[in-house]
Amino acid sequence: MAIDPERHSRILAMMREEKLDALVCSSPTEVLLLTGYWPVIGTSVAIFTREGEVHVLVPSDEREIAEKSSSAVLTAFSPGELYALTTPQTAIAEPLTSLCTQISLTAATIGMEREQGLQPASYAVTASYRSALADILRGAFPQIEIRAVDTLLERLKASKTVIELEKMRVTAMIASTGFDAMTEGIRPGLREAEIAGFLQMNFERTSLARQMQRSYGFFYCMSGPNSATAAAAYARTRQREVCIGDLVMIHANTCGDGYWTDITRTRTVGEPSEKQTRMREAIMEARQAALDSIRPGVHAQQVDRAARSVLEKHGFGPQFKHGLGHGVGFAAANTNGRPRIHPASPDILEVGMTFNVEPAIYFDEYGGMRHCDVVAVTNSGVEVLTQF
Amino acid sequence: MAIDPERHSRILAMMREEKLDALVCSSPTEVLLLTGYWPVIGTSVAIFTREGEVHVLVPSDEREIAEKSSSAVLTAFSPGELYALTTPQTAIAEPLTSLCTQISLTAATIGMEREQGLQPASYAVTASYRSALADILRGAFPQIEIRAVDTLLERLKASKTVIELEKMRVTAMIASTGFDAMTEGIRPGLREAEIAGFLQMNFERTSLARQMQRSYGFFYCMSGPNSATAAAAYARTRQREVCIGDLVMIHANTCGDGYWTDITRTRTVGEPSEKQTRMREAIMEARQAALDSIRPGVHAQQVDRAARSVLEKHGFGPQFKHGLGHGVGFAAANTNGRPRIHPASPDILEVGMTFNVEPAIYFDEYGGMRHCDVVAVTNSGVEVLTQF
Repeated sequence: MAIDPERHSRILAMMREEKLDALVCSSPTEVLLLTGYWPVIGTSVAIFTREGEVHVLVPSDEREIAEKSSSAVLTAFSPGELYALTTPQTAIAEPLTSLCTQISLTAATIGMEREQGLQPASYAVTASYRSALADILRGAFPQIEIRAVDTLLERLKASKTVIELEKMRVTAMIASTGFDAMTEGIRPGLREAEIAGFLQMNFERTSLARQMQRSYGFFYCMSGPNSATAAAAYARTRQREVCIGDLVMIHANTCGDGYWTDITRTRTVGEPSEKQTRMREAIMEARQAALDSIRPGVHAQQVDRAARSVLEKHGFGPQFKHGLGHGVGFAAANTNGRPRIHPASPDILEVGMTFNVEPAIYFDEYGGMRHCDVVAVTNSGVEVLTQF
Repeated sequence: MAIDPERHSRILAMMREEKLDALVCSSPTEVLLLTGYWPVIGTSVAIFTREGEVHVLVPSDEREIAEKSSSAVLTAFSPGELYALTTPQTAIAEPLTSLCTQISLTAATIGMEREQGLQPASYAVTASYRSALADILRGAFPQIEIRAVDTLLERLKASKTVIELEKMRVTAMIASTGFDAMTEGIRPGLREAEIAGFLQMNFERTSLARQMQRSYGFFYCMSGPNSATAAAAYARTRQREVCIGDLVMIHANTCGDGYWTDITRTRTVGEPSEKQTRMREAIMEARQAALDSIRPGVHAQQVDRAARSVLEKHGFGPQFKHGLGHGVGFAAANTNGRPRIHPASPDILEVGMTFNVEPAIYFDEYGGMRHCDVVAVTNSGVEVLTQF
């Protein structure tokens, strides 16, 4: 598949502005950003030069995946041999220094990932070079200059191209198949793990996923008092049995070929109580107020304010314990993903930015309700990608 | 829960031998090794001193999980605030330098993870400090000396304690519930993703998992020609429909509270052909030969040889394309995990080592068959943890 021309020119513009000769990245999400190919294990290295050439050093057993998703120049390397023991670090050293010599990066200014980072799970287990790549380059080419480009990469990832947005739409559509099973899946007497497993199965089995090379996700179920703990930075399914009267929160992070969603829906088991009805009305009104406020040029903190003031009006201000959202797309949940829809955010909305909108009310010991959508900023307003 | 005394004294012995004043680790698996607590997001930092004190800086919303699994001294920090934007890197700087000052590590020799590493998925998305922790420490304490201890950690993880082995047994027992569903799950006309989803659901729903704080896994299904690609470093479920006569391979990596399994079983759809019967007989004979060869003091490469020579005798030598196994436990699949059961391995088996035994035959375009167990070295021989 050809490299996304819009993404390619944005990266090139950033490199010229920052006077970088090349970007050398190995985190799966960053390789995806630079090349269109989402590595599985995490040993691939992408090099993007100021001439706009895109190279990938790819372990030979990921070559087919890389070829189908990127027109970058691929150089396969062998991550291991049957009759010699190698580590990813020793396996990459020769191919990396050869490629850098071949494309004249021996005295270049190179941007690399360096600071704290966040990666979605691209497989059950993933490799990371940590500082090994920089060590190899510095050892081989003493004149090379290495700069940390973490913030620049974060900015590049914020706004999606037309092609990337379309991939996120398909990913959201596939995720909906998991949530479609909620009516059947949530029943009193079932344990949270049983409900999560059933929804997960429905997601995994959707034939919509045929459009993807890799489609998978994580479904979490939190019920009753456990749903109140969903205000944390992570979700957790437990073995609690769901009872009549409970709030039951389903949270999912699903992905298609490296593009992620972050979705939550909450149901009541049996007829909702008056309190639950008031919570839902406040959340849906807050959601609508946030959506109405979204358009290019708006301050992200105003979007948070729009939702938060509705929840405050309904008396639920103290129970809305986190920011309204954060960038979503290249990672499922990254509270530092741009734009940060947060009371203290300095970010300003731009066309193509994708983020979640997650108004919520958490009562400790009682339960939590959250409704989390993924949205994109359009020329004139907002598109909700999770229309279900 | 108290810290595993056997693990604690092994770590201490290694530190004294290496003349280290402290270990400072943040990868979830290494925090588990040092403390018994398996972090979710990856922002926790464990410090193990030469006096045997164990400290953890834990994000406040993981405090409950840490308390239930470790008696380390916990210091909670806030990973984010509602009215201030912080990054994990800025959030950890003050608590980390305070703690190091408090326990007198300001001019210490410290071991840290530095080189290429491998982590199992502890959540849908995980954070990594990359070089940030070392940068913070060097900035705050110019007299500190930082050493890479990656190889030492790899060695420590190879042999499991009595308590860790028991956790691996339970994890393997839970994994069996996914495989129990194979008979019902594999039917002609179903797509690989449908089969994998069904097995995944059965695994997620087992009530055996009540013994764990977190239990989850990844199930993969590869059928027909796709099963031949399972010789790669990763498994991949596709949308292919399973047909009569196919080999259908189910691969799973499952975990309980940070301890992982690596399991494969292969079925034939309908009556096995003569070729398939010959393949299975050779694989089961190779497996038995490998198991018979395992005991403390044996060279790991002899175990590979035991299985490989059986497959060669049956004419399947060229089709067995990888080493017989690798360390399993703290990660699901780490071809560099000790002991490496590989033709070129320098490793020698020790009591408590856990690894997989995965004889396999792959015919390109036709299909692959693999049988992968997790085993432990006992005083007198071997224990198969995946007895199903």
